[in-house]
Amino acid sequence: MREVFQNQLTDVQTRLVEIAESVTNIMEKASKAFLNNDVTLADEAIALAEANENRALALDELVIRVLAKQSPVARDLRVLVSALRISASLERMGALAGHIAAIARYRFPGSAVPESLRTTFEEMGSLDVELARKVTTLLANTDVDLARQIQAEDARVDELHRGVFDIVLADDWKENAMYTVDVTLASRYHERFADHVVEISTKVSYLTTGEWHEND
Amino acid sequence: MREVFQNQLTDVQTRLVEIAESVTNIMEKASKAFLNNDVTLADEAIALAEANENRALALDELVIRVLAKQSPVARDLRVLVSALRISASLERMGALAGHIAAIARYRFPGSAVPESLRTTFEEMGSLDVELARKVTTLLANTDVDLARQIQAEDARVDELHRGVFDIVLADDWKENAMYTVDVTLASRYHERFADHVVEISTKVSYLTTGEWHEND
Repeated sequence: MREVFQNQLTDVQTRLVEIAESVTNIMEKASKAFLNNDVTLADEAIALAEANENRALALDELVIRVLAKQSPVARDLRVLVSALRISASLERMGALAGHIAAIARYRFPGSAVPESLRTTFEEMGSLDVELARKVTTLLANTDVDLARQIQAEDARVDELHRGVFDIVLADDWKENAMYTVDVTLASRYHERFADHVVEISTKVSYLTTGEWHEND
Repeated sequence: MREVFQNQLTDVQTRLVEIAESVTNIMEKASKAFLNNDVTLADEAIALAEANENRALALDELVIRVLAKQSPVARDLRVLVSALRISASLERMGALAGHIAAIARYRFPGSAVPESLRTTFEEMGSLDVELARKVTTLLANTDVDLARQIQAEDARVDELHRGVFDIVLADDWKENAMYTVDVTLASRYHERFADHVVEISTKVSYLTTGEWHEND
């Protein structure tokens, strides 16, 4: 019975890793689409985000079946509840990357990124991809310690997010309202994406330390 | 044993209703603060949003304890998993209302709402409050049918959200970038708030029909 349960837990973990890989791929495409007005990549990212949602829902169903069959308690129960929450975060991350791609799609053949914000969004996009990669590693191998790196990169994304407003609200911002709207939303989506990585890493750190810090 | 479990389920439900009432209260204060540059109400909304997060986390802990003690299966298990998801949505709704209040706080003593968008945000705010009230009723009394009204009101919020961009992107939009940023984010927060109400009503409709439609 314990062996069956361990196999089921491994299955849950494998699927979480697959979804995290898919989210990394979606963000990579979305960021490139956004920076380079690439409508093909944008469409790919949007389609992958939809598929990602279904994968997350299928994983939730698997977790509920395991809960029903195994009636786990203590740590095992918390691992499975954590999996539900991690799945919800990964689903949102895919959706947020899809929203970034949709902005590129909507502005095509124009660009959604004014030159004055290009380097900011390049850095934000590559940080988000890097964070998604780190969270994939963390889910695959829960005994690695990436929490500090993840927190530092999230702090940098927050800083860039605030920097977007500094640029947009400065006297020399001459772009039209369309650009202002696009960069405001795109920056928010990048920032929320990174927030979810921090939330997931908090859940995973529980799995290794056995301590349940919801408020960390 | 069954009776104990029923009491625990009732406790979970009562707490969800209390959190939904608190979220309604937060959105009411946030919307008024945003529309009337009322910094006192804004501070109240922000403080209540923080308390709301802790209540949602405490509810999650209760649900996990019930799962551990009762090892529910079938419908009972799904009710408890739904409670976790509803709690996550209510927590986000409180946070989104807090973000709206924070915009008002940040612009004080100025206004975050340009006159050209006042009626739009008045309607969005009152729809969000109305939606929060409906979801409270739905959680208190799961056999009422409010799904259609909720969907119609959410559709109207989406329409108003798109309308904000129509106004901001029109040739006669003369407000500065600060207003453009504020109304873009505020509109997004109002829209996401309503989305969560739809998500919760989908979960509750499962509790009454016994059908689990994640994709509805």
